[in-house]
Formats: sequence, structure tokens, C-alpha cells
Amino acid sequence: MSVRPILIDGEWTPSAAEETFRPANPAARQPLDDEYPVSPRDEVERAIQAAADAFAATAGWPGERFAAFLDAYAARIDARADEIIELAHAETALPVAPRLREVELPRTVNQLRQAASAAREGSWSLPTIDVKNNIRSLHAPIGPVAVFGPNNFPFAFNSIAGGDFAAAVAAGNPVIAKGHSLHPGTTRLFAEEAQAATEETEMPAGFVQLLYRTSHEDGALLVSHPLMGAAAYTGSRTGGLALKQAADRAGKPIYLELSSINPVFVLPGAVEERIQKLVDEFTASCLMGAGQFCTNPGLVVLLESPETDAFQMAVAARFDATPPGTLLAESVLEGLAESVERWRAAGAKLVTGGKPVEGRLAYANTLLRIEADAWLKDPDALQTEAFGNATLFVIARDAEELLEVANSLEGNLTGAIYSDTRGGDDALAAKVERVLRRKVGRLLNDKMPTGVAVSPAMNHGGPFPATGHPGFTAVGVPASLRRFSALHCYDNVRPQRLPIPLRDPNSTGDTWRLIDGLWTREAVVKKP
Amino acid sequence: MSVRPILIDGEWTPSAAEETFRPANPAARQPLDDEYPVSPRDEVERAIQAAADAFAATAGWPGERFAAFLDAYAARIDARADEIIELAHAETALPVAPRLREVELPRTVNQLRQAASAAREGSWSLPTIDVKNNIRSLHAPIGPVAVFGPNNFPFAFNSIAGGDFAAAVAAGNPVIAKGHSLHPGTTRLFAEEAQAATEETEMPAGFVQLLYRTSHEDGALLVSHPLMGAAAYTGSRTGGLALKQAADRAGKPIYLELSSINPVFVLPGAVEERIQKLVDEFTASCLMGAGQFCTNPGLVVLLESPETDAFQMAVAARFDATPPGTLLAESVLEGLAESVERWRAAGAKLVTGGKPVEGRLAYANTLLRIEADAWLKDPDALQTEAFGNATLFVIARDAEELLEVANSLEGNLTGAIYSDTRGGDDALAAKVERVLRRKVGRLLNDKMPTGVAVSPAMNHGGPFPATGHPGFTAVGVPASLRRFSALHCYDNVRPQRLPIPLRDPNSTGDTWRLIDGLWTREAVVKKP
Repeated sequence: MSVRPILIDGEWTPSAAEETFRPANPAARQPLDDEYPVSPRDEVERAIQAAADAFAATAGWPGERFAAFLDAYAARIDARADEIIELAHAETALPVAPRLREVELPRTVNQLRQAASAAREGSWSLPTIDVKNNIRSLHAPIGPVAVFGPNNFPFAFNSIAGGDFAAAVAAGNPVIAKGHSLHPGTTRLFAEEAQAATEETEMPAGFVQLLYRTSHEDGALLVSHPLMGAAAYTGSRTGGLALKQAADRAGKPIYLELSSINPVFVLPGAVEERIQKLVDEFTASCLMGAGQFCTNPGLVVLLESPETDAFQMAVAARFDATPPGTLLAESVLEGLAESVERWRAAGAKLVTGGKPVEGRLAYANTLLRIEADAWLKDPDALQTEAFGNATLFVIARDAEELLEVANSLEGNLTGAIYSDTRGGDDALAAKVERVLRRKVGRLLNDKMPTGVAVSPAMNHGGPFPATGHPGFTAVGVPASLRRFSALHCYDNVRPQRLPIPLRDPNSTGDTWRLIDGLWTREAVVKKP
Repeated sequence: MSVRPILIDGEWTPSAAEETFRPANPAARQPLDDEYPVSPRDEVERAIQAAADAFAATAGWPGERFAAFLDAYAARIDARADEIIELAHAETALPVAPRLREVELPRTVNQLRQAASAAREGSWSLPTIDVKNNIRSLHAPIGPVAVFGPNNFPFAFNSIAGGDFAAAVAAGNPVIAKGHSLHPGTTRLFAEEAQAATEETEMPAGFVQLLYRTSHEDGALLVSHPLMGAAAYTGSRTGGLALKQAADRAGKPIYLELSSINPVFVLPGAVEERIQKLVDEFTASCLMGAGQFCTNPGLVVLLESPETDAFQMAVAARFDATPPGTLLAESVLEGLAESVERWRAAGAKLVTGGKPVEGRLAYANTLLRIEADAWLKDPDALQTEAFGNATLFVIARDAEELLEVANSLEGNLTGAIYSDTRGGDDALAAKVERVLRRKVGRLLNDKMPTGVAVSPAMNHGGPFPATGHPGFTAVGVPASLRRFSALHCYDNVRPQRLPIPLRDPNSTGDTWRLIDGLWTREAVVKKP
């Protein structure tokens, strides 16, 4: 079978790749038929130039144009859903239902449509008008965005269909997608619909492009090239930090989602009060998608007690009784086994699991335990992410030790505190929150972190090394759009030269603007 | 005279410095009496720990507390204005009037008071509430901020009194100020009042601290230490890039203002229409403060014509007739002379000036000229900033060449377009703007860039290498505060544990909040 073409400058183009790769079916542990190119530098450079041309062509376009594209694209995905789901299932082994069909694909088209609404409405850009001084500003498109998608969400974080893509486009930027090598076929189907949608809505050639894989050096070029505006990356810490270094040197913004163990503090009153509910919530969250979630609860911190031991036993029993999910790739299985070995080498004891499942691409649901004093001897080794269905319980002798564990944590996407409903845990909960709040982007109460609602108030971000900057979120409209923007100020610029959202009339009628300190949808009223 | 103490952990403390320095009076070209310490690493580390303790102590404080400090501090600066102005004049030779007394000091206390208002009002943090999902988020303090002030604004950008300081504090963060070595006495007087204001308003020890100088390595520590939240730096590109590298590696946000030549495009109709007005505006902007402004117009691009020659001659005559201002330091004089030599080596011809003023710390008002085709051979050398009273005219043969010059520019803080009032320049203005818009933070029409209004719509920022990230502004409340924030999301967090601005009632009554997509000052209304 011939090598699949890449999408450059509006055309499906044969690649001059000398190297190719094939995805695999994780359920069958067999390679799939399709062959995909590793694009040489020349193709990366052509994509960058085409994206820059598309950026120039769309300069000054109203949000409506980008919204129309996103909506058309969402409709096309819906129309081709069966085929996309089938191929994604083959490439990832993620369950067709409910995961792919009922959860992830609806979420993905919903993200595209929310982004379209935000682009149309325009408030995301925080238009700000100082009437007296005639100074006006707003967040404007930053330039072509390179999006590197992860392995674990073939739809919702796909480089050419997921949240980063939607946000970058809604903010008015062309996208160069770098697909993930584990699901190139899924990405190809999306790209076909994206390209068709650009034609349907008369976007310029090169507005959306797809490369399946590049060398590491060319990945670095994508995030640092003078014609590029910004980049978004979700994936391993090592890969992300290499890209960050290249982008930082060039002064280009890069938004990273690197790793997170999502600590859950279960305070004693909660264990006493509702042990069965906790077991249900925790095991569901932990084993969902074989634990292959950025917000998987990889660490649970508890106080030692008979109830804690009972909780641990109940979780272990549930782990044993639940069939382990199929992992995404052989490399995920290897990485997971290594992580568990690293935990053990640092002193954690195996409670259950800790070995591959025979004859399948799967790892036994795994629980380890370590006492807090042992944790505190090597928190760095013990808090490296184990990507998959393994989790670590840390048992503290007292509140002070539990707080020390909290203090030893690095930046995470989320942190959760479970406490009793009668107030017995409140004093300790306040102390834990004080420490945890600085270390996480999203703080939860009595709720597991795995669900990441596409809400305007969501923060899917957090302090380094969870991400590269604690001020930004990868999920949630409108805030996620502002990542891909430059602040543009207009000082004494003549009225007819202003971008539409900064002119005196509110042309959409819907756009919230900060006029002389007041948020309003009214037109600018000049005082006589 | 003994070495001046440093301000650490709420106390004026003798430094254990082995190395010291003395500022000079630029007008007299003589050292001043006071001696200041270069703090060793131990003092830097103590300051960081004290700042972290102060950060922990102020966690969860309402904006009102930070506002009260800023207001008290502003009042104290006003009360001590004479002494501060006198010492600043001695250390910088900037004119007492109008510059220091009527412009810069009022601006500085105004910035502190605007920041106080923003902290009190609370909308800067973009509180966002998703009622149905009970997910709430806002921008929260990021942690201790290190502020490195520049040489050219002893008040308005002072590390312990200027815009970065005001923004960092208003956002709720302790500040470690690293004073500029050219005006340590001015900085000391501010710090005395800042410390007194912390006591008056019961801020914790270590909330504001001052180090006069450190080694480069310890400067890097200040921007990268795990206990630090972020840093702000205004100064030379070399120094800033070194700090950026250290901060980037540690995943700590750093906001830089590095260099800018602020291109001004004067289109032919404007020259024909109002040559005298242009000469007045341009020379005033260019020679103000001996050109030692980050927004000094260092580059003027024109089309060749007899009128352009006349404009150039008139500017040169005005340059010759205006007494050159005293420069801030011998190093500024040396740097300026080097920059002019670099321009000449790259092909620019001297029109007037180009030499030091005999017997004074000053450089002749200097104008150079280069044809656009010569510029295009080495734009990198020709667009390095010449800090001081020197500017370069680039003369293009035609519109196409003028646009090529625009295309060759790197990121700048500002860019201006002058055009005629009858529409004759409009087509060319549109083409210039298309190119220039992507390269500057603030675009001006018919106005010189030197004035930087403290307006909510201001952007004192721009693409690299003008700054480190094009999405942020160093001037303008409330946006400048958000630089020093982390996004904090609360997912299902119990009502009494929420930060005040995210609770159902709007406790200040003034805070704008984005509730279910609508900006409002109302309380959260739960639907039955």
C-alpha cells in the first residue's frame, strides 16, 4: 500500500519521506495496513510558509469567518462519525461505547462549536476602550499555531480537531497539526473533513495543514520559526521540555501540558463517613480508560487508621475484580511497568497488580502503598507520573506528616480534597488547601479529577512542570483562545482603520467590551 | 561613610557584602557619597525565604488589604516628594521640572493609586462562574515577584515604586526589588516609605524587600528559585535574555522589556501637508530626556522626495539648535557612541551630530540617513537600539521598498504611521499597517510613541525581542496585574471555602464577574 499523502497548502500532497511508519491495533497487537510519512525538513518549511500566507490572507477577518469554518467542520465530523469512530477504535482500542461515540466525539464537536460561538461573539478578545484618550486594545490572532496532540485522546485533543486546534482557529490563526503517531488514520479522517470545510467556507489554502511526523529537529523548527506565532503541546515531559527550550530561545509562546499525578487527599472523616462511595468514585476515576488520562488520580494521601486500611483493601479488591483496559501501545505498557518499578525501588510496596496481563496489551490494575516518612525521603522519584492504571497510596502518621507530603509536591493540573460533611475535617482541610492551592490549577472538593468540563470557568492548566505557565488553561472557552493571541493596542488610530470590535458601534451587538472601566454591550457614547 | 543597609524581612539590615558601589552625579561627572552593597548569595536566599513567608501569610487576603498598603505608600511618597526629587536629580541629571516633579512623580503615585483601585475593585482577576456545573475560577496571586528596574525612569519604572511593583502588589504578591545601580539613593528613599507603609497597614515582614545589586548568578537565582512566583525586568537585551534563560529553564514566568526602535512611517502626503508640525512633534519626541526612552522614535521611514529632504534638513537644524540633554551615565554615552558607529559601519551617513559634547556627559543630537536598499542589506545591524538622542532616517525610493523595510523589522513596542488628512496616503497606509501591525504592541496614527498613558487600553508590550511574550502589557491597569497571577479553578468546592470574589454574593458590590457568559456586578442567582 502506498504512503498516505500529507496536507500542505490546501492540497493532499505525496510526501518525499524516506522514512515511514505504521500504526498498530493495540487489541490485536498487530500493525495496521496504512503507511504514513515522516516529513523531511522541506515539507515542514513549505507548511510554515503556507501557514504564514494564510495568516496574511485572513488578517482583519471578522470572527464570523472563523466561526463559519468551525461550524462547517463540526457538521462534517458528525456526518462521518461512524467511520472516524471505527478507525479510532482500531488504532487505540478505546471502547466504541460509551467512550468514543457517546463521550469523546460529542465533546469534540461541542468544543468546535463552543469555539465557533466565541469567535462569532468576540468577547474572548477583551476589547478595551479608553474613550477620552482614544486608546483601544484587544487580543488579536498571534500567527500560525503548531499543535502537537497526545496519544490518549484521539478526538478531544487531536491536533487537527481537539481543544487546542479549536482555540487557535477561533482566535483567528492558521494551524499546522503534527499528528500523534499512534492514531494517524483518525487524524487523517479529521484532516480530510477540515480541508473540505475550509473549501466550503472559503478559507485560504494552508489555513489547516497536517504533517504526520517529523524529526525532533523539525519539531523544534515548528515551534521556533520566525513565521510561526505560537505552539501547543500535550504529551511527555521529555518531549515537551525539548520543544519548550527551542520556543523559549526564539521568544515564541508555547503552551505545554506535560505531566500530572493529581493528588487526592482523603481526610479521615470522609473515610469514616462514606468508605463505599469513595471506593466507587476512586476506582471508577482511576481505571477509566486504563488510567490513561492527564487527570488520572495517581496519588492518594491518607492518614493511617483501621478505616484507611479497610479503604485500601476495598480498592485493591475492586482493582482485582475489574478487567484491566487495553493500553494504547506497547510503549505505554513498557513505560507503566518502568514507573511501577521506579516506585518500588524508592520504597513503595505492591498491594496488588504490578505485572503485565498475559497475552494482552494490558497491565494489571495496580495499587502500591508507601508510608509518608519513606515518601519524604525521595518525593521526586515517587511523584513521577505513571501513565496508566496504577496508583500510589501514601499513608501519613499524623496531620503534620500529611502536610509535609503536600508540601513536597510539584506543580499539578489538579488536586482534590475529600472531607466529611459534618465539619470534623474542616480544620485539616483548610491546612491542606493552603498548601495544595499553590500547587494545582484546579482544586476539587469531594470529586475525582478525571472529568474536565468544557466550561468557561475550567482551568486545565497549573504550575510547572504540569504546564509551562500557570496563567493559562487548555480547556474552557473563552480563556483558552487568549493563549493564541497578541495584545494589539491602537493609539489615536483613525476610526475607519480600527478593527471592527474596537469601533464605536458594537457591530455584532453581542460583544462584551470594557469601555472606560465598565463591561457593556452598548456602543461607545462620546460625551459632548 | 558606611555602606547602606539592605531591606530584608522587614528590617533594614547591614549587608555582609564584600563588594560595594557608588552612584555618580551625571551632571558633575562625580561619584556621590553614598556607598551601596552588592549582596552575597546568602542575602538573596534570605530575601526569597522571607518573601515566601510573606506570601503564605497573605494567602486569601482580600484586595482591600493590598490596596490599603498601596494607598498609604502613595501618600508617603507625596509627603516626601521634595527629597526624592532632589536625590533623583542628583543621581540621574533628569530635570527637576517639568520631568521629575510635574510628570514622572505624579505618574508614579497615580500608578500606585490606580493599582490600589484595581485591587480593591477586583475585576482584574476575571472572576468566572459556571453556576450549573459549580465551577469557578479567577486569577490569583502567583507568588513572590522579583522586579528589576531600568536606568531611565527612576520613579515610574523603579523596582520598588514603579508600574511592575504596583501591578505585582495589587495582584497580591510580595516583591523583591533589585534596584538599578544608577539611582540606588532614590530607590532607598522609596523603600523607606514602602517599608513604613507596610508597618502602617500591617503587612507581614518581607512583603517588600530591596537588594541594591547582586551577582549575575544571584540575579538568575531570583528569577528561577522554586519559592519565587514570577519576575519582571526592564533593561538591556543582553541582561534580560540571560535572566529569561534561567527563568524559562525553571518554568517561571518572566516579563521582559528589552529593546525597541519604535519605527515611524511618515507617508508622503503627511510630509507635504504639515512639514513644520512634523518637525516639532518628531524632534520633541526624539530629544525628550536625551532620547533615553523605551519608546523613543529611533527610526523614521520616508519616501524620497524634495519634501523629505526638506524635512530632514529642518530636523537636523532643530537638532543642532537644541542643547543636548545630559545622559544618565558614562556607560550610556559609550553605548550610544558605539551604536552610531555600528550604524555608520553598516552604511548610514551622518547628517548631524555623531560626537560627544565636550566637557559634559552628553552626546550631540544625532541624525543619520540611509537609503532603503542599503538598509535592506543589513537590517539586523541597523535596527539594534541606539539608546539616547540619535535617530536614523531610512529613505525608500518607492512604496514597494518602503514595505520591504517594514517587512525587515523585528518586534517593537510601538510603530507609528503618519498620513495626510485628505486620504491621499490611505492606500499606502493600509499596506504599511498590515505589515507593521504584526510587529508592534501599540500602533499609532499621527502621533509620536513617547507618551505611554496609564490607560486600561494601553499596551506597553510587543513581540519578541521587544518583550518575551506578545500577550502582556507592562503598563495599564488592570491588564498589567494579570501578568503576576496564576489561574485558580475551584471545582465543586464548598461555598464557605471559596475565595470571596467567587462566592455567590458580590461582596464588594463593584466587582465585574463573568457569570454564565454575562459580565455583571450582580450576585449569583441560582435557578430553582
